[in-house]
Amino acid sequence: MNFKRKKLPLFLIATLAATTTALAAEPIQPIKPVHNINLAQVELGKKLYFDPRLSKSGFISCNSCHNLSMGGTDNLKTSIGDHWQQGPINAPTVLNSSLNLAQFWDGRAADLKAQAGGPIANPGEMGFSHQLAVSVLESIPEYVIEFKQVFGSDTIDIDKVTAAIAEFEKTLVTPNSRFDRWLLGDADALTPTGLAGYELFKSSGCIACHNGEAVGGNSFQKMGVVEPYQAKSPAEGLSAVTGKDADRFKFKVPTLRNVEMTYPYFHDGEAETLTEAVDVMGRLQLGKQFSKEENSRIVAFLKSLTGDQPSFLLPILPPSTDSTPPPKPFD
Amino acid sequence: MNFKRKKLPLFLIATLAATTTALAAEPIQPIKPVHNINLAQVELGKKLYFDPRLSKSGFISCNSCHNLSMGGTDNLKTSIGDHWQQGPINAPTVLNSSLNLAQFWDGRAADLKAQAGGPIANPGEMGFSHQLAVSVLESIPEYVIEFKQVFGSDTIDIDKVTAAIAEFEKTLVTPNSRFDRWLLGDADALTPTGLAGYELFKSSGCIACHNGEAVGGNSFQKMGVVEPYQAKSPAEGLSAVTGKDADRFKFKVPTLRNVEMTYPYFHDGEAETLTEAVDVMGRLQLGKQFSKEENSRIVAFLKSLTGDQPSFLLPILPPSTDSTPPPKPFD
Repeated sequence: MNFKRKKLPLFLIATLAATTTALAAEPIQPIKPVHNINLAQVELGKKLYFDPRLSKSGFISCNSCHNLSMGGTDNLKTSIGDHWQQGPINAPTVLNSSLNLAQFWDGRAADLKAQAGGPIANPGEMGFSHQLAVSVLESIPEYVIEFKQVFGSDTIDIDKVTAAIAEFEKTLVTPNSRFDRWLLGDADALTPTGLAGYELFKSSGCIACHNGEAVGGNSFQKMGVVEPYQAKSPAEGLSAVTGKDADRFKFKVPTLRNVEMTYPYFHDGEAETLTEAVDVMGRLQLGKQFSKEENSRIVAFLKSLTGDQPSFLLPILPPSTDSTPPPKPFD
Repeated sequence: MNFKRKKLPLFLIATLAATTTALAAEPIQPIKPVHNINLAQVELGKKLYFDPRLSKSGFISCNSCHNLSMGGTDNLKTSIGDHWQQGPINAPTVLNSSLNLAQFWDGRAADLKAQAGGPIANPGEMGFSHQLAVSVLESIPEYVIEFKQVFGSDTIDIDKVTAAIAEFEKTLVTPNSRFDRWLLGDADALTPTGLAGYELFKSSGCIACHNGEAVGGNSFQKMGVVEPYQAKSPAEGLSAVTGKDADRFKFKVPTLRNVEMTYPYFHDGEAETLTEAVDVMGRLQLGKQFSKEENSRIVAFLKSLTGDQPSFLLPILPPSTDSTPPPKPFD
């Protein structure tokens, strides 16, 4: 017999029951805390994530474009790469990216590990090669020892590098947003405007694509369903991966978690504000012209999706040695 | 009557006495812990230090070139500025910079506060203006409130911005190096090679310029005393500030604290390794050709100067708002 249970006050039992029902009924689920993590890999991956020596210039790290002080993105329309090259696409946030069905806007990487190697070797981003990045790490005894400790192997290779970065990225989830607290039963966590916005978000159809734990990230959808999207960007999305004409302009639906922090919006970063993004989405995807009040209600809901940002000590990187190949920022 | 004092074991009294004598006799003093700090200013300054919105591009922060993961510098020969411009000089470390007699290699800023405004408005560095930086901050309510809380004033101006950054920078000291522990009485903290290196550092004359708490940073000296320095860099040092011909090629003596992490060396970053830097300094400043063994002893001593690196949570920056002027990385 459960003695403790019998002592629960009636109103609490009612609340818990309502919460369970509410949770089951809602198309958005609270972010689950991180679990099943290899802590040693996380610590190594954190260093690598912040280490600009994985770039040719010695100046660009993963954190340059997926800045964890700024919602896991660079808040630029398109990113800055090696030699200040202008990137072709908006940097998606790394926050909650473990929840995505695939990585990159066009889904060309199956998972975080496959993604992590991309920018290092992309001439327009970090401008390096996997081999050169590995030889930098091999020249630094602290890294050699840490890889050995973490992977039980004397060799460093790009597979281990990206595995460690991906493991760190798995920790970058953002639980405890106001919306999640509301989902979990705290009726006061959402403002009345935010709640009205959520109802509108559901009834208008936004929820059809932006649902689940990440409020997106779990499907590819065409940008411009009702009306075509007048893009300046040449990016064509999923078709670049599948080769299918039917997949042209299909992009991975971005997560709306922390969307207040991940401006500007869309794969081309053309929408500078949430208001603009909601307006364009309403018209192009749903054939709906939201009124000013409707728009601001949805924006109020979206702002309730900002969760606890990853909190950790800035990593200290082991210094290069006399045998470390020096960076080449101006070649 | 001091009861506790009477109870000190004799060997401890002897150790303390020896330590006091040793400390007084040594030309290098241990780094003192941070004191007399305005914590609220430090927290605000930390955010500003990491905020790339103080640059025109929205991509470069103080931490880009004075990277606190990497000894407070960028480990590049010369720095990368707005639009990937090549800087004219090596970025000096921000670590222990509060101990410098003046800031910049040529001492043109009297203190950290005067320094902090420089890069923001330098077209070759962050490429912004003080006025534009302030208007970005004014558009972000969290910053407005924090400035009000910290300075008790409704207005943000560059004076408060640089004061907060400087206050944060005052915390970036690195106590507890092996050498400091040795100075403080732990005879085992220095290796025999490191100790021999320190003796040689003193007897050879290095100590004449590299002394005090920061092991440098407290005088301007000519680069190339015995032999002229064949510089590729056009930087002429102190004379650019004083206008005096006698000050040509005089530079602020850099701190040697954490020098293992602050490569490459000299105002032009031309020395890639400590071995090379020690060799050049010996020949040009002291007329001494150190043998391989002597050089490596001095390097062993220099590596004992790496202290505890600043340890803090990566700051989370408040998001821009609809009224925040967007960055202009590609204009």
